[in-house]
This record gives sequence, C-alpha cells and structure tokens, in this order.
Amino acid sequence: MSKEQYKYLLNESDLPKQWYNISADMPVDPTPVLNPQTKEPITPEFLNVLFPMSLVEQEVSKDRYVDIPKEVREIYKLWRPTPLIRARRLEKALGTPAHIYYKNEGASISGSHKTNTAVAQAYYNKIDGTKSLTTETGAGQWGSALSIACNFFDISLEVFMVKASYEQKPYRRVIMQTYGADIFPSPSNQTDYGRRYLEEHPNSPGSLGIAISEAVETAVKSNGAKKYSLGSVLNHVLMHQTVIGQECLKQMEMADEYPDVVIGCVGGGSNFGGVAFPFAHKNLTEGRKTRLVAVEPTATPTLTKGPYAFDYGDTAMMAPILKMFTLGHDFIPAPIHAGGLRYHGMAPQICMLYDAGFIEAVAVPQPGTFSAGVLFAQTEGIIPAPESAHAIRVAIDEALEAKEKGEKRVILFNLSGHGLLDLAAYDAYNQGRVVDDTLEISQDEIKARLPQVAL
Amino acid sequence: MSKEQYKYLLNESDLPKQWYNISADMPVDPTPVLNPQTKEPITPEFLNVLFPMSLVEQEVSKDRYVDIPKEVREIYKLWRPTPLIRARRLEKALGTPAHIYYKNEGASISGSHKTNTAVAQAYYNKIDGTKSLTTETGAGQWGSALSIACNFFDISLEVFMVKASYEQKPYRRVIMQTYGADIFPSPSNQTDYGRRYLEEHPNSPGSLGIAISEAVETAVKSNGAKKYSLGSVLNHVLMHQTVIGQECLKQMEMADEYPDVVIGCVGGGSNFGGVAFPFAHKNLTEGRKTRLVAVEPTATPTLTKGPYAFDYGDTAMMAPILKMFTLGHDFIPAPIHAGGLRYHGMAPQICMLYDAGFIEAVAVPQPGTFSAGVLFAQTEGIIPAPESAHAIRVAIDEALEAKEKGEKRVILFNLSGHGLLDLAAYDAYNQGRVVDDTLEISQDEIKARLPQVAL
Repeated sequence: MSKEQYKYLLNESDLPKQWYNISADMPVDPTPVLNPQTKEPITPEFLNVLFPMSLVEQEVSKDRYVDIPKEVREIYKLWRPTPLIRARRLEKALGTPAHIYYKNEGASISGSHKTNTAVAQAYYNKIDGTKSLTTETGAGQWGSALSIACNFFDISLEVFMVKASYEQKPYRRVIMQTYGADIFPSPSNQTDYGRRYLEEHPNSPGSLGIAISEAVETAVKSNGAKKYSLGSVLNHVLMHQTVIGQECLKQMEMADEYPDVVIGCVGGGSNFGGVAFPFAHKNLTEGRKTRLVAVEPTATPTLTKGPYAFDYGDTAMMAPILKMFTLGHDFIPAPIHAGGLRYHGMAPQICMLYDAGFIEAVAVPQPGTFSAGVLFAQTEGIIPAPESAHAIRVAIDEALEAKEKGEKRVILFNLSGHGLLDLAAYDAYNQGRVVDDTLEISQDEIKARLPQVAL
Repeated sequence: MSKEQYKYLLNESDLPKQWYNISADMPVDPTPVLNPQTKEPITPEFLNVLFPMSLVEQEVSKDRYVDIPKEVREIYKLWRPTPLIRARRLEKALGTPAHIYYKNEGASISGSHKTNTAVAQAYYNKIDGTKSLTTETGAGQWGSALSIACNFFDISLEVFMVKASYEQKPYRRVIMQTYGADIFPSPSNQTDYGRRYLEEHPNSPGSLGIAISEAVETAVKSNGAKKYSLGSVLNHVLMHQTVIGQECLKQMEMADEYPDVVIGCVGGGSNFGGVAFPFAHKNLTEGRKTRLVAVEPTATPTLTKGPYAFDYGDTAMMAPILKMFTLGHDFIPAPIHAGGLRYHGMAPQICMLYDAGFIEAVAVPQPGTFSAGVLFAQTEGIIPAPESAHAIRVAIDEALEAKEKGEKRVILFNLSGHGLLDLAAYDAYNQGRVVDDTLEISQDEIKARLPQVAL
C-alpha cells in the first residue's frame, strides 16, 4: 500500500515534544559572537537588551533536546505536523528512477516555515514580560508569521518591511495588518538610522540589513519597553525549526525509505537547518551518510563565494558580529524575487558545518529556479515560493542525475513556503523578465569591507 | 484524547470511492431543464454540444452513488482528504459552549473546493475525446481549478474572466497562466456576443452572466472542437463536490460528534451542496434533523428575495433555462468582493430543497462577513476567502446564539477557500471601505424580466 501513497500524515500526538539543538553535537568548536562596539565576546546582558533571557539561554544552550512548551505545541497543532508528500507526478514528468519527497511547510497558517519559530519567540517573550516587539521583513514571510504569533500572545508588533517589498507586495502588508501588526516601509522616518539613510538615499529600495538596523534601534532605544525578534540566523531560531526535520524522520520511516540527500534553500539558513539538522544528527551520531545540500541564489552566493570571516549581522553595524560566510554587511543584493534569500550572511551553525565539510552548498541562477517552480506547479499543483523553488531546482537536478546514472536515489527537499503572495514574480518569469543576476565578486573585494577583529 | 484534538485527518485510503447523487433521494419531483430557443424540455443531444456525453449522463442520473474513476481519485490524493478542524481558538474568543468545526477546502492545490469538480470534468472530457475547453471565471477560483485540472489531462483551456476581476486580481490571472491556460478579460473581442456587448458598453466591468455567454458561444461555434465547462449550478457539479460532506461524516465520527447545523455560502451552490447533501441524505433517509443553512450576500439575495421561476443560466440567453430562485438573467450584481457569490441564479437541486423546506437560507451584509473573516484569521490563523467568510459569519452567529441560550450546539461549516488572492478585499475592509450593498428589489420587478415559459 505504501507504494501507492502520496501523503505521509502524522497525527497531533506525533508532534515533536522537543526541539533538537545541534550545538550539543557540533563537531567543531563554536565560533564566538562579538559585541559590535567593543568587538569583545558578547555578554548575556547585551543580548538581553534585544532578546528575553529565556531565548538568550537557548542561544547558548548545549542541551541536545529542549522541551517545547505546551502553549507552543497547542498552537503548532493548528497546522502541524505538516504533510510529507511523495512528488510522484513530478517524478513521472522527469522520467526518473529517483524518489522525490517534499515536506510542505507552505501548509502553515502564515504560508511558510517561519511560523515555527515565530510562535516560540512570541511565547518566550510573553512569559518574560515583553509587551511589544520589533522586527524586519524582506519577502514578508517572516513578518506575516510573527504578526499572527504576536496576535496569539497579545503582544504588539512593529514590522520594518524592506521598501521594495512593501511596494511590490501590498498583499503581504495586508496580511500583517489583518493579523494586527503595524508596518513601516524601510528605510523609514521612525528611526534615527532610517532618517539618516533616507537623507543620503531618498529613493532607496531598502535592504534586509537596513530594516534589521531599524528594528534593532527601535528596541535598543525603547528603554526596555520593546524587544527585538529575528526570523533566522541565530541558534535558537534554527533550533525551533527542527520540528520540520524531526517530523520528516518519522514520515520517511512511514514511507519505508531514508533520504540519500536532503535539500533546502538558504537565506539566513533557518529552513535548511530545520530540515537538515535532525538528519545531520543521524550522520554525526549513527554513521548515516545523507548528503545535506544548502541552495542559494547566484545573486547572493554567500556560502559559495563569500569569505568565512567576522561580520556584522546588519548594515548599521548595531547587531552582534558573527563569524560567517559573508558578502559584507553593506552588500546590497540584486532585487531578485526570492526576497527571503537576499541576506549578506548566514547562520553561524550552518557556516561551521559547511566549513568543516559536513554540508554541501550550491548556487543556482534565477531563471532555472523559476522553470523548476513552474514544472512543480504544473505537476504537483502547488505554486512554490521563489525561495523554495531554489530547493526544487536542485531536487530536480539530483533526480535527473540519478536518471542519467540509472540509480535509485531518495531525495527529500523542504518546500519552505507557497508562492501565492509572489505571483508578480511568476508573471515576470512567464513574460521573460526574469534574468540571470549572477554576482561576480572577489573574496578580496569583500574582505576589504569587513570589520577589523582581533580574533 | 479526542477532547484535545484540533485536526481530524483521514488517510488516502479513506478517500470516498463514490460521489453521492442526491437526485436518487430528492423528496420532490425534479424540475425540467428547457432549451433556450424552443423553451421545450432539453435533449441530451443539445447538452452534448456543450458537455461530453458522460457528464450529460451524470446530469440526469438517478443512481444514488457514482464511482469516482481511479484517475480522478489519484489526483484527489494530491490534497484530499482535507482536514476537518475544531476551531477551538475561535470558540474561546466567542466564549461559546458551542463546538465549531470547519472543513478546510482551502487546502486544495488551487485553494478552493472547485478543484473537486474541475478534475472530474477534465477527466470525463478527456475520455470522451475533448481536446479543448472553454469556461468563465468571476473571482478566479473556478478558473484556477480548471486550469490545473486541464493541465493534468493535457486539455487546452480558454478562460473568460470577468473584466473587473481580471483588472483587480492580476494574481489570479498569473496562476491560471502558470498552469498553462489562456485568459481573456470579458466582455472580450473573442466572441460575437462580447463584441456586441463592448460596442454598447465599452467600459463594462463584465459579469459572470456575460462571461458564461462568451464561453458558451466559443464552444457552440467551434463545430465540436471545443466543449464548455461550468463550475457550479448543475447536478453533476454538485455531485462531484459531495466528497466534502462524505469526508465530514467520517471526520465528525472521529470527533465523536454529529452536527446540529451545517453551513455553507452559496453563489451557484456547489460548495454548499457538497458539504450539505451527504447530511441531507442522513436527514432524508435516517431521520437525522441537522439544519442545513445556505448563506448568501444581501447584495445578491437569490434564495431570500428572488422568485422561484424559470430563467436563463446566462445573460445572452444561450444557456439552458432552469427553474431556480433568480434575480433575473440580466441582473448585474453590486461589485462586492465575494465575486464567487455574484450569480443571479442558484443550483436547481438546492432550489428544490429550499422550496420544499429541507434547507434554510440566510442573507448577510458585507461588513459583517469581513469582521467574521478577520476574527477567524486572528484566532485560527487562516485568512478566509470573502465567500467563505459568509459561512463563518453565520457559524459565529449560531455560536453566539448557543451562548445566549446556554446550549451546546455542534456547528460545521465549509471553509470553501482561502483568501490569499483576495487581500485587496481585506485591505478595503481594514480601511473602512467595505459598505453594506444590500439589494432592495421586489419580486414583481424581477418577474417582469423573466422569459415567458409555458410550464
């Protein structure tokens, strides 16, 4: 029977009870996080200006498993466990002997994986007394997720939305407003940094780095009244996302298979970490040899072209300095439609694993991601987010390679979100307006723009 | 355990194997369908100009159950069975002792229940040799559903999209194009009727009635090369939708409850028929007494204000004449955001049951539907289609009445689709621009515009 099955569904009772913390199994020493002013290792007190202490503790925790609070699990149940789906129609269209599975995080209430950490972060802020949060959003997935999460826990939310997205994606703004959040196009006149930036660049389309700076400034200058929330990059964010991979492990078992390769797109790295880390755990502790492949756009080739160095998390140099593969904190990416992948850096945990050879990275040009997204839509029926289409591109390439080699290959990718709010991007592609934005840059060029750090 | 559950999930093996045909149990004599030219009862040959013979046979079938072909069930498995969800957070927000369940048809690949019949119709057209289909779409849900269905069966599709929607909902056009269909804003210059209409009304925003006329003309004048497909109203369409209610019966059993009231919005009537008819079957054959409530906008109060009379299905008087509650085939509804409910008539099967007292109808004004939709979004996380928000409005009213009376009431409504392509509507509501479009009209006024029929 399982041979004919499409969807592998778990019941609510199968929802993971704990998050998996890869810090416990990290095969290399953790890289330090530095204070952006002193450039010395950061203190919990500094982080606590931005984040509630419960999340600061999670950020540095070495516990392999962290209990998911009952209140968070109750909300997860609105959409979790998400389905694992065998993409049989896509396989058939490719004529491949490979088996392609995808985890549908687009089934979440806000349409992407982001809700997994948004709900957790809103919960911990609530119990630590936070009444008001600030954040930034690029593509809008993160802002939407945090908006509904804050609404659930009765926390007010200010979202700084990259101005280009604010103007091109009015529907994302409407979702956040319908969930009850306040939205400002960034750069905005709400912050000192935004005002300064606007004076110099009145027509700036904004960037994620600028929006982060505005959200961080708003929290820092609130005298403790507001905290800040980040949708990717940090350890605790990636940990919250591991419900994805943990569910996949159970669902692959239901399908009586085990993946040869696990694929996710990377911007800050959280959906990839979420799907891949539980499989990395099996690789690290049980001798499994699943390939873990992070996919980025050639327009923002952080892992594949950036140097591994210390850099600020934001443009205004107010956020902590992290060791990561980076294109430079002042890098303004090409305005590609996969807005969620337009970040100059990468989650330190992913960088450590990539640097040490435990994960692979591949960069793909834009047109190929859209052709993959359209083929997926026409075979499986779901229009994927442009970000997720990066993972689909590589899943298809893996399946075609398996076909060429005549080998069975079990491929799992994370469909991080649906593309129903990204249809302007598909319109551009259908009309031949999506171009190859491959970035040509040298590591020396990038290094010249990095902060000088003693380490 | 079931006491704490949110989602009631069925496996693929629980997918209904047959559609339920209420014609077998109809407690009143069926009303005849008339040829629009001769006004005599229609012949299968006339219907076959528009529809493949297999669907014509289903239209007049008296078989209580009709097997769902394996090929259709395979595609249903991409998203079916859909979840039944206990809206616990909505209940809590209302402080009601009522239990509110909703069937999430928005989880379908095209985002609404429409895919259930689209796939079936594309399949039967395929086996009867159809290579090309025409249809109309208002809100875009039907056009999207038929686009992906035709793509699956390699049938080309021309969609006449009501011009107001074409302009206000570019994302819907993009979805259909991404699935491979050709889209024309209606009235168009593709048809004689469209050209005539445009000459007289060059700035017409169009209507569903006009778009149906254009799609029907295209099929009729194709010398058999093209067939036509309708997304609601007809018996076979409602029958295809009964997978919804059949799944609900099983899922309510899992929840160990049985609904006191089943609610659905009505435009042409197919999602309401789909959820309600399997419960009507229990009422008619097993003595159950579930109330079945059809909800329409006060802007298009077909059941609640229209006379029960013979009228054309379309504006150009080319489609068959049906006995139905109607506002008149030349009625142009107010441009409300629930485009899927802007139809002058109603499915004859629903009209028969309503006329005979087996179902109830209620009309609700626009602002109340949006306030219900926003409350649903803020509690359950899903932004509903404006059409579905009509059902939510009445579900909430039922729950509030139960609270006032201090009685437990089990409420089931059909969430016919998500509202992610309707966010301009929510924006208008958030900005206070949704007004009460209640139609004031007398039955005599309507009757004066109806065709003269001997019966």
